[in-house]
Amino acid sequence: MSKWIWYHGDFEIYHAMKQNFDREERGMTWPAYWYTSNWNHNVYFKRDYEVTHKQTFIVHAKGKGYVKITNLGSDEHESKFPLDTKIESPIGHIRIQVFVSNMQGLPTVLVEGNQIFSDEEWVASNFLGSDVSVGTSKYFTHANQNPMKFEYSQRRLMASKIEIIDGGTLYDFGHDITAQTLFKFNNNFQQITLSYGESRTEALDVLGTYLKHTLKKEKDPLGQYYPETKTFVTKLRAFRYIYVPDVSNLKKIGQLSVNFEYVDFPQIGNFKSSDNELSQIWKIADRTLRLCSGVFFIDGVKRDRWVWAGDAYQCYFMNRYDFFDKEIVERTILGLRGELDIKQHLDTIVDYSLYWLISIELYYETFADKNFVNNIYQKMKRLMDYSLEQTNDLGFIYGRKGDWIYIDWADIDRNGTLCAEQMLLARALQSMVYISKLLGKDDTFYQKKYHDLRQNIDHYFWNATKHAYIDSYESGMKHVSRHANIFAILFGYVGQNRANEIVRSVLRNDRIEPIKTPYFKFWELEALAQIGKYKYVLDEIKSYWGGMLANGATTFWEQFDPTKQGSARYEMYDDKYGKSLCHAWGSSPIYLIGRYLVGLRPTAPGYGTYEINPQLKLLNDFDCTFPLSTSGDKVEMSVHEGTLNITATRPGGVLKLSDRKMTIPANETIELSINENNNWKVKK
Amino acid sequence: MSKWIWYHGDFEIYHAMKQNFDREERGMTWPAYWYTSNWNHNVYFKRDYEVTHKQTFIVHAKGKGYVKITNLGSDEHESKFPLDTKIESPIGHIRIQVFVSNMQGLPTVLVEGNQIFSDEEWVASNFLGSDVSVGTSKYFTHANQNPMKFEYSQRRLMASKIEIIDGGTLYDFGHDITAQTLFKFNNNFQQITLSYGESRTEALDVLGTYLKHTLKKEKDPLGQYYPETKTFVTKLRAFRYIYVPDVSNLKKIGQLSVNFEYVDFPQIGNFKSSDNELSQIWKIADRTLRLCSGVFFIDGVKRDRWVWAGDAYQCYFMNRYDFFDKEIVERTILGLRGELDIKQHLDTIVDYSLYWLISIELYYETFADKNFVNNIYQKMKRLMDYSLEQTNDLGFIYGRKGDWIYIDWADIDRNGTLCAEQMLLARALQSMVYISKLLGKDDTFYQKKYHDLRQNIDHYFWNATKHAYIDSYESGMKHVSRHANIFAILFGYVGQNRANEIVRSVLRNDRIEPIKTPYFKFWELEALAQIGKYKYVLDEIKSYWGGMLANGATTFWEQFDPTKQGSARYEMYDDKYGKSLCHAWGSSPIYLIGRYLVGLRPTAPGYGTYEINPQLKLLNDFDCTFPLSTSGDKVEMSVHEGTLNITATRPGGVLKLSDRKMTIPANETIELSINENNNWKVKK
Repeated sequence: MSKWIWYHGDFEIYHAMKQNFDREERGMTWPAYWYTSNWNHNVYFKRDYEVTHKQTFIVHAKGKGYVKITNLGSDEHESKFPLDTKIESPIGHIRIQVFVSNMQGLPTVLVEGNQIFSDEEWVASNFLGSDVSVGTSKYFTHANQNPMKFEYSQRRLMASKIEIIDGGTLYDFGHDITAQTLFKFNNNFQQITLSYGESRTEALDVLGTYLKHTLKKEKDPLGQYYPETKTFVTKLRAFRYIYVPDVSNLKKIGQLSVNFEYVDFPQIGNFKSSDNELSQIWKIADRTLRLCSGVFFIDGVKRDRWVWAGDAYQCYFMNRYDFFDKEIVERTILGLRGELDIKQHLDTIVDYSLYWLISIELYYETFADKNFVNNIYQKMKRLMDYSLEQTNDLGFIYGRKGDWIYIDWADIDRNGTLCAEQMLLARALQSMVYISKLLGKDDTFYQKKYHDLRQNIDHYFWNATKHAYIDSYESGMKHVSRHANIFAILFGYVGQNRANEIVRSVLRNDRIEPIKTPYFKFWELEALAQIGKYKYVLDEIKSYWGGMLANGATTFWEQFDPTKQGSARYEMYDDKYGKSLCHAWGSSPIYLIGRYLVGLRPTAPGYGTYEINPQLKLLNDFDCTFPLSTSGDKVEMSVHEGTLNITATRPGGVLKLSDRKMTIPANETIELSINENNNWKVKK
Repeated sequence: MSKWIWYHGDFEIYHAMKQNFDREERGMTWPAYWYTSNWNHNVYFKRDYEVTHKQTFIVHAKGKGYVKITNLGSDEHESKFPLDTKIESPIGHIRIQVFVSNMQGLPTVLVEGNQIFSDEEWVASNFLGSDVSVGTSKYFTHANQNPMKFEYSQRRLMASKIEIIDGGTLYDFGHDITAQTLFKFNNNFQQITLSYGESRTEALDVLGTYLKHTLKKEKDPLGQYYPETKTFVTKLRAFRYIYVPDVSNLKKIGQLSVNFEYVDFPQIGNFKSSDNELSQIWKIADRTLRLCSGVFFIDGVKRDRWVWAGDAYQCYFMNRYDFFDKEIVERTILGLRGELDIKQHLDTIVDYSLYWLISIELYYETFADKNFVNNIYQKMKRLMDYSLEQTNDLGFIYGRKGDWIYIDWADIDRNGTLCAEQMLLARALQSMVYISKLLGKDDTFYQKKYHDLRQNIDHYFWNATKHAYIDSYESGMKHVSRHANIFAILFGYVGQNRANEIVRSVLRNDRIEPIKTPYFKFWELEALAQIGKYKYVLDEIKSYWGGMLANGATTFWEQFDPTKQGSARYEMYDDKYGKSLCHAWGSSPIYLIGRYLVGLRPTAPGYGTYEINPQLKLLNDFDCTFPLSTSGDKVEMSVHEGTLNITATRPGGVLKLSDRKMTIPANETIELSINENNNWKVKK
C-alpha cells in the first residue's frame, strides 16, 4: 500500500507548530512562548529497486522538484522526470530519488505503482549526514490527501438544552466539545455575538469570557460567512455553553449548530462498577482524555491547546488503559522533541525534557517497537547530553537563564538545585541506559552518571531528622514538600522501610502541604499504590475526582480545591476564567483504576506477557475491558456476586489473586468463584 | 519613518530559500542540493518608550499574535492588544512587545505612530538567548507592502527583431533578460510552444533547449492564463531569444511581449575609452552584473539562479566600481550564511565558506558599517570555528564526507589537503583577526592559528625545485597548478622575489595548464595587477573578454574556450546548453579596470580616504565615473589629449601619478596636463 512519506519527525514538527500557534484568548492569537522547531523544507526520498518487467509509476508531491532514476548497473546513467506524471521505469537495478522542496509547507510525496510505491522501506535525506527513515501515518494513504491537513472526524451536534436568560439565549451542549460554530441565517446576515463558556458562569459573563466572537460579514480572521448558504462558520473552539446576548428570539434570526471535530480513537478500555460514582469517574476521565487527544496529547481544550511534555507523559500512561493508540504517542514524542539540534528545554521546562527522556522507555514498554526507538535515539541522546551539560560537580542539574524548573504549581523551596529535579534526572538516566542497552549502544557513561547521582541525592537531600527528602540543601531551610518524596517511592529509590518512613512523615502527614493539581496527584497516588496503599488510592479517587463531580464537572479540571465555591472555582493564573475545565491530566483515574485497582500491567515489552492483579476486596462488582496490543487484542473481566470471568485474546497473561497465580489462556473464558477472603477456585 | 522589521537575517533566509528553490530545467523545478536554512517562525519584537502624551499606534503584521504593553513603572502591569487595530498608548515608561508567529511565511511587523514606530531601534527575539537587532530594508516602509514579495522594477519590452525561420517565429530581444513572457491572444486561447534560448542555436533547438513552455489553458504550474484579458503570463525566465515553432503567422494568433523584472540599481560606475573594445567590454560586463544582481548576487540568469558564495564574493568587488549598493551585499552575506547554527559548508563548498569569512572584512572595508559587522559576528565566529574543527595537526583544512573542495573547474591534484584551500583558510583567519580586533574581541586564538598555518603552508607546499607551491604534498606528485600560486601573490604571502619566481615558473609558463573560467581569471589577473603587470592584465582583458565579444557575446559567459566553435561553445556539464551565457563572474573587467587600470581604491574603511592611481600610459583617452559612498558620492575623471580632469564629491582623495601625489579637493575640478612620460602639472 502506498503511503505518504516525509523526513522522519517532520510531519510532527509541522503539526506541532500549527497546534502551538493556535491558542486564542479574547480575540487574539497567543503563539506558544518558546523557540519553535522547523521542519526541513528541502529533502529527497530514495529507494533502490530490482525491476524485472516494464511498469510505470507516478509521484504525487506537496512541493516542487523532480524524480531522478539512476541505473545502478555499470553505466550509472541518470535521467530526470517531472513530478505528477506517469513515469516508465527502466528495467534493471535502479535507484529512484525524489527531490522535493516546499517553502510554505511540508515536503512530502506519495509514489503509486505496482512494484514501485512509497512506504517505510524508503529513506529520506535533508542533505546532511546519513539518510534517515521516512515517516508515515496510517491516516495518509491516498493521492488526494494532504498530510498538512490532519484527517479529523466530524459530527454535527445541536444543543441539548436551550434557555432564555437575561434577554439572551444560552445553548448547553451537555459537556465540553471542540467545535466550529455554525450559524445559518434565515434571511440576511445580522451581527450577533457568541459568548463561549466551559462553565455557565463564564458564558453568561459576556464582558469577561475567555472566548467570544462577534460575527463579521467580511474580513473576519476568526471565521467566515458563506453567502451562498447564508452560513457563518467560526474557527474551532472548545466550550460547553454558547450564550448569544441581547437576542431572545434567536430562532427568528437563524439556527445555531456546531461541528464537533475529533480524532476517532477506538473505544477499547472500559470500566463499569456497581459503585456508580466510580463508574462516573471513569466515564468523565475517558471523555476528558479523548477531548485532549488529537494530533497530539494537548494539555486542555480551551486553553492552551499546546503540547506540554509533562502533561503528555501522563497521557501515555492513560492511553494504555483506554484506546492504546501508538501513533498519537509517536506523534506527541516527535512533535515535542522537534528538530535534531536541541536549543531549549521542551516547553522551556527542564523537568519536561526529563519526562520526555523517560517516555521513550515507557513507549518501548508499551509497544515494543524497536524501529521507532532506533529512529529517535539520536534525538534522545542529544537531549540527555544537553541536560547533562547543566549539571554541577555533584551531578545535580540546575536551571540556566530562560529555563523553567517547574515540578508543580506548589510552594517548593526553589533555592539552588532541587531534589525532585535530581530524582527525575536519575530516572531519565535509567531510561537512557535502558534504551542504549536495547539498541546495543554503549551505556557506560550514563550508568556511571546514574550511580553517582543516586548516591549524591541520598547524601545531600535525605534528612534523617525529618525522615524525608528536603527540597533544597543549599538554602538551609530544610523544607519538605511531597514531590521529591513521591518520586523516591515511585522510581523505587527507597526500600520498604524508608518508603514507610516517607509515608508517615510526608504523604500521610497533614502538616505537609497537600498536592493541589491532578497532575501531581497522579504521581502521589501511584507512589502509594506501588507500596500497596490501594484503599487510600481508591478513597482519594472518590473524594478528589468525586469532589469535582459533586461540583458539576462533566470533564475533569486542571486544578480542584474543594474549599472554593461559586465562580471562584474557575479562576487561575490571575484570570477569572483562566482555569481549564477539561484538562488531560485530570484523567488519571483511567490509569490508576486500570493499573492498580484492576491491576493490569505488562511484564514484558509490548505486553508480550502481562499480569492482572485485581483488588477484589476494594472493588464492588464490576465489568472492565482493557487493550493488550495495537492490533485489537484485549482482556475482558467481570466480577459479579462472587464470580470472576476473564477472557483475553492474546496469550501471555497471568491472573494473580491472593498471591496465587494462574495462566490466562488465549481466547478462552475462565470463570472463578471467589469467597470473601479472596480465596478462589476455577469454576470452568 | 516606519520600517518593516524582522528577526535579523531572517528576511534573507526567506528570500534565499525562494531563490534557491526557483531553478527550472526542462519543465522541472530543481531545488538546490544542499541543506536549506530556516527562518524563525515565532518571534517577538520589543522597544521601550518614555511616553509623555496621549497617542495611538497600530501594528501591521504578517502573521498572528498580539501586542503586549508593560508598564515599567512600579506595578509592571501588563495589557494585551490585538494586531491591526489602533492602540492607545498609556503614559509613562512602557515596554511594547509584539508577538508574532507565521507558519508559512516570515513573521514581520510594521508599527505606525508618531512617537511609536518600528525601526532599527527595536530588538527581536526567537525565545533563545539574548535579543538581537531587527533587520530592515529601504524597500519596505509602507503598511501595504509585504516583505515576502521583493519590490522589483518592471518594464514591458518588445523583441528588437522578429524572424520567420523553419516555419516558426524567432523573437530576438537583443541580449539576455530575465522576464515573464506575456502572450495576448487575439481571439481564443490556442496551444503554442515557447522555446527559449540564451543563444539563437538553443532557441531553435526545440527538442534540446533548456527552457521550454507549452502553454496550457488550465493548471499550468509554469504560468497562468487570464481569460478576462486573453493573456497568458509565464513564470520568470532568462533568455535572449524565444522561438515559437510551427507558427509563422504568429501575429494572427496574438502578440508576444515580455515583462522584464529587475532591481533598479543606480547607474553610477561608468567607463568609456577611445578603445572601443574596452568600452564595449565594460558595457557588457556592467549588463551582465546587473542581470545577475537582484535580491542577491546570483551566479547566472538562466541557470542556476542560486546564491553561490564564491561567485557572490567576486560581485562584492565589482559592485564597488558599479552601483555601490550596500543592501544587496548585506542580503547576500546573510542569505548565504543562513541561521546561526552551522550544519554544512556554504553551498556545500569548503572554499565558499572561507570566501564568506573574508567577505566580512571586504564588507567593512567597503562600507565601514560596524553595526552590521557586529550583528553578524556570531555567525562569522561559528563558521570559522566549524571550519577549524576540520583541520589536522598542521592546521590544514580537509574535506569531510559531503564537503566539496572546489577551488575551480581545473585539474588540480586533489589528494590530501590542498595548498589553495590552506591559502584561503589563512586569509579567512586574517579576516577573523581583523574583525575581532575591530569589535574589541579577543583575537589571540585566531592570530596563533594564522601564524602556524602560514609557516606550515610554506614548509609543506613550497617546492624550491619547481619554484612554485604544489597542489598537494601528500600525493608525492608535486603537481603545480596556478591556483595556490595566484593566492600566494594575491594575499601578499610572498615577497617580491618569490612573486617574480612564481610569475616566471607558473603564471607566465605555458606548460602550466591555463585558467579556463572567468572566475579564476579574476584572481589571476588581480594577482598580476598587484605586482604591477598592468599591461598583461589589459592585454588579457582584451583577448579573453574581447574574445567573447568576437563570438557575439552580449553578456559574459560562465566559461570561454577560444578554440571552440559553433554550438560546442554552449556545452557544459555534459549538457549541450548547460553553459550559462550571462554569468556574474564574467563581469570582473568592471573591477579590474576600475581598481587597477583607473586605479581607484579605498585607503581607509568606507572610502574615508581613497587613492586614484591611473595607468595613463596603457589607457587611451577615457571618461569614467566611480562611486565613493552609499550616499551618492562619486569621482569623475577624464583624460583627453593630454589633459586630465578629475572631480570628486567627497574629500579624502589622493591622485597618484608617477609616484607623485596630490590631494583631490572635494567638489572642485582639477585639470592637469600630462606629457608622454606621465609627467604632469596642474593646469587649473
